[in-house]
Amino acid sequence: MTAYAELESRFRRLSGLAGAEAVLHWDWAVMMPPGGAEARGEQLAVLSGLAHELLTAPDLGGLLDQAEGESGNLDDWQRANLAEMSRRWRHATALDAALVEALARAATACEMTWREARAADDFAVVAPKLEALLKLVREKAQAKAAALTLSPYDALLDAYDPGTRFARVEGIFAGLRRRLPALLDRVLDRQGEAVPLRPTGQITPETQKALGERLMVMIGFDKNFGRLDVSHHPFTAGVPDDIRITTRYKDGDFVESLMAVLHETGHALYERGLPKAWRGQPVGESAGMSVHESQSLLMEMQACRSDEFIAFAAPVMRRAFGGTGAAWAEANLRRLYRHVAPGLIRVEADELTYPAHILLRTDLERAMVSGDLAVADLPAAWAEGMKTLLGVSVPDDRDGCMQDIHWYGGDFGYFPTYTLGALAAAQVFAAACAADTNIRAGLGRGDFAPLMAWLGEHIHGQGARYPLDELLQRATGEALSSAAYLAHIEARYLS
Amino acid sequence: MTAYAELESRFRRLSGLAGAEAVLHWDWAVMMPPGGAEARGEQLAVLSGLAHELLTAPDLGGLLDQAEGESGNLDDWQRANLAEMSRRWRHATALDAALVEALARAATACEMTWREARAADDFAVVAPKLEALLKLVREKAQAKAAALTLSPYDALLDAYDPGTRFARVEGIFAGLRRRLPALLDRVLDRQGEAVPLRPTGQITPETQKALGERLMVMIGFDKNFGRLDVSHHPFTAGVPDDIRITTRYKDGDFVESLMAVLHETGHALYERGLPKAWRGQPVGESAGMSVHESQSLLMEMQACRSDEFIAFAAPVMRRAFGGTGAAWAEANLRRLYRHVAPGLIRVEADELTYPAHILLRTDLERAMVSGDLAVADLPAAWAEGMKTLLGVSVPDDRDGCMQDIHWYGGDFGYFPTYTLGALAAAQVFAAACAADTNIRAGLGRGDFAPLMAWLGEHIHGQGARYPLDELLQRATGEALSSAAYLAHIEARYLS
Repeated sequence: MTAYAELESRFRRLSGLAGAEAVLHWDWAVMMPPGGAEARGEQLAVLSGLAHELLTAPDLGGLLDQAEGESGNLDDWQRANLAEMSRRWRHATALDAALVEALARAATACEMTWREARAADDFAVVAPKLEALLKLVREKAQAKAAALTLSPYDALLDAYDPGTRFARVEGIFAGLRRRLPALLDRVLDRQGEAVPLRPTGQITPETQKALGERLMVMIGFDKNFGRLDVSHHPFTAGVPDDIRITTRYKDGDFVESLMAVLHETGHALYERGLPKAWRGQPVGESAGMSVHESQSLLMEMQACRSDEFIAFAAPVMRRAFGGTGAAWAEANLRRLYRHVAPGLIRVEADELTYPAHILLRTDLERAMVSGDLAVADLPAAWAEGMKTLLGVSVPDDRDGCMQDIHWYGGDFGYFPTYTLGALAAAQVFAAACAADTNIRAGLGRGDFAPLMAWLGEHIHGQGARYPLDELLQRATGEALSSAAYLAHIEARYLS
Repeated sequence: MTAYAELESRFRRLSGLAGAEAVLHWDWAVMMPPGGAEARGEQLAVLSGLAHELLTAPDLGGLLDQAEGESGNLDDWQRANLAEMSRRWRHATALDAALVEALARAATACEMTWREARAADDFAVVAPKLEALLKLVREKAQAKAAALTLSPYDALLDAYDPGTRFARVEGIFAGLRRRLPALLDRVLDRQGEAVPLRPTGQITPETQKALGERLMVMIGFDKNFGRLDVSHHPFTAGVPDDIRITTRYKDGDFVESLMAVLHETGHALYERGLPKAWRGQPVGESAGMSVHESQSLLMEMQACRSDEFIAFAAPVMRRAFGGTGAAWAEANLRRLYRHVAPGLIRVEADELTYPAHILLRTDLERAMVSGDLAVADLPAAWAEGMKTLLGVSVPDDRDGCMQDIHWYGGDFGYFPTYTLGALAAAQVFAAACAADTNIRAGLGRGDFAPLMAWLGEHIHGQGARYPLDELLQRATGEALSSAAYLAHIEARYLS
């Protein structure tokens, strides 16, 4: 057996372990009775410990070197697979076992305390835990920076988004910083004071689920390979041939829940469309969190909030919920799904104000990782940033710097991917629609096949073969920029 | 760290892996979309492969020897834990990796073919696969026999039921063979031709689930530590603090489904009651399949089919299903839940004819393992046995020797535990009722607390500390026999 073949067999095993972990996480959030938490924590710790041992096995570095030496015999996919194996190995071996364990413990402790602190709106309760965790995250960033020859923040970014570097991100984000405030003013001005009407009808969890499943299937979700359930926050988990998506239902209000299903369906179809020949191998997985988010936002923001789809969907929604009256008119539903309003909460933000939430978090987490911002100063920095970026006053830390779980669970370097994904979504959707005029026309009759065919070929079927910029270059003719997103905002809100 | 402490840490890890496997199996049967089967098979193969590697690690034998040497410092629980670790290690190391893998593959192939062969009622389709599998099972039995110094069949038995030997089983089964035919004749004679009335009412899956959950909780199932779902066949899975039980619902007929819930609740409460101090260690698990089955059958057959409980439950059922008329009278429900009728199908058998199904399977599987019965001769031997033991003519192999999955999945040596469990259930229930007269009285008011308290102390809380006979000796004053079961049949059906 060649070294490369041996590596494929090792990584297939790691993929099996990761798939098992994914199902156990889904079960935790969706099915598990509360008393099962301790045993489940233990199961997951065992699986991730074994995965870490397999990935840092003493002979793996040698196998990677050997396979590099043989790489003249590998095709492009195999070479990309080998590069991704090597990247994962370098991330894993950068940290010693003691640091990995300390991080896991500190993250669990901080996340649990965060839940209490948030409920009590008392940042001081969680601050010491966040300080301890941040200290370990900084150690991790330093260790990975040394091993990967990257800056500490880039080393964190790279774990979520292979190949993405902050210099590129900052270049793109700088443009948003300049352009968004004036754009927001113009949109708010144009939007005026009128608030969309709230549709009423037979809006129960059951009717919402039935419509959600119908639209999922219409978009291309095959229920033989996945399912839709309920959880506290919507998410997508599982493995490509067994995708678990979730939403949550408010009685009497379908707006958020339905769009959450469409968003998660975008994630799900990306997973399903990953190259079948590479199931179980690193190159057969997604190209990172930015590309993943681009596929959910492409579905939610670009396709399903398009004029064409809303025109198609308005009567479908009205019938599904037995609605009558002006609130169910196409024009009102369009306003409802495109209402812009600066607010406190990231996950409730519209597509125009969302990037400001990310710019703030990116600034603050970079400052925390570099040591320029102390945990104690986070609430004030947050409030100041919200004022500057969105003109919003932060009344408390619960809806301020304690609103997101990420930092409290040890995730630093993740936030930028939300906005990189939003920009990529606009860029990819524009390229797809330019390449095939049937795509927009299809949305107008609820036919997503042309869109899915284009995405399957240019994005989904490429797996992790290329990093973000190269993937976009090949798919859209250009590396990532904010141009398509800004043009989209102009077209949708100001034309 | 002592060798014993190191072993506890190794086995805690194995327990985490086993728990993960249990949840993934449950998910497969209850939640997984069909397209997920291949990926799930891969995940489970990875987990069981890793577990086998951990259990056969080169240094484990040395650690066991060392811990034996230190065992003067261990308390009784620790010594029992060490003995159970050693037993598992001997089972695992008896087989080389190639045989383990060949068995797993042959079992999967045979089980899949069995589904087709059974659907087509064509034994010839599955016979070659069963032959191939049986050959490997016999190799396994030989290898384990050598390693464990047991007969081949005892080596198979011991994997399901630690410490149980066929010489003991055969002694007990011989008595059943002698006594049951005459007993069955007398009961059928006494029962007469009258068939119980079928209750009708609002018998939907929803009303059945609501009543099932109510009775589960009444018996002592805490929904913070488990859940009830639907699957093709009822089963219990999960881990002690996260128990998943299932049933299946027929529209319009609650009889089987409800009793299945009570049966599985018996399994669940055993798991829940296992000693908390020993979670994650071998001695903290069940004492084997016979004791496990004794706890489900004690609940289903002894407690929930008792005069006292049926008197309590009859009006509860009637109200739950909005029933009226003679079919809902206590006397009719008692007849319904105690109807005796020799039949073809094991899983539908009443408590009096069930042992005959097991005697047949035990004879046949012993003959197959010893080489005295060829796979080709199985259908004829089955038909002959059914005629002799129950006077039943077997019309086809689908409802004959292809009705159970066990052999086709490679499980030889499992069947005897069903009847050992039934006998133990009667013996334990009789001892409990003799020790505490509140137990039967409690059942009459739906109060299972006295019964659960006795079981918790004498059975559940003992974990795997004692093998079957010693556990019963301590709990009931006698080793296992058929006396209590036969007395129970006499009392319930002939007095």
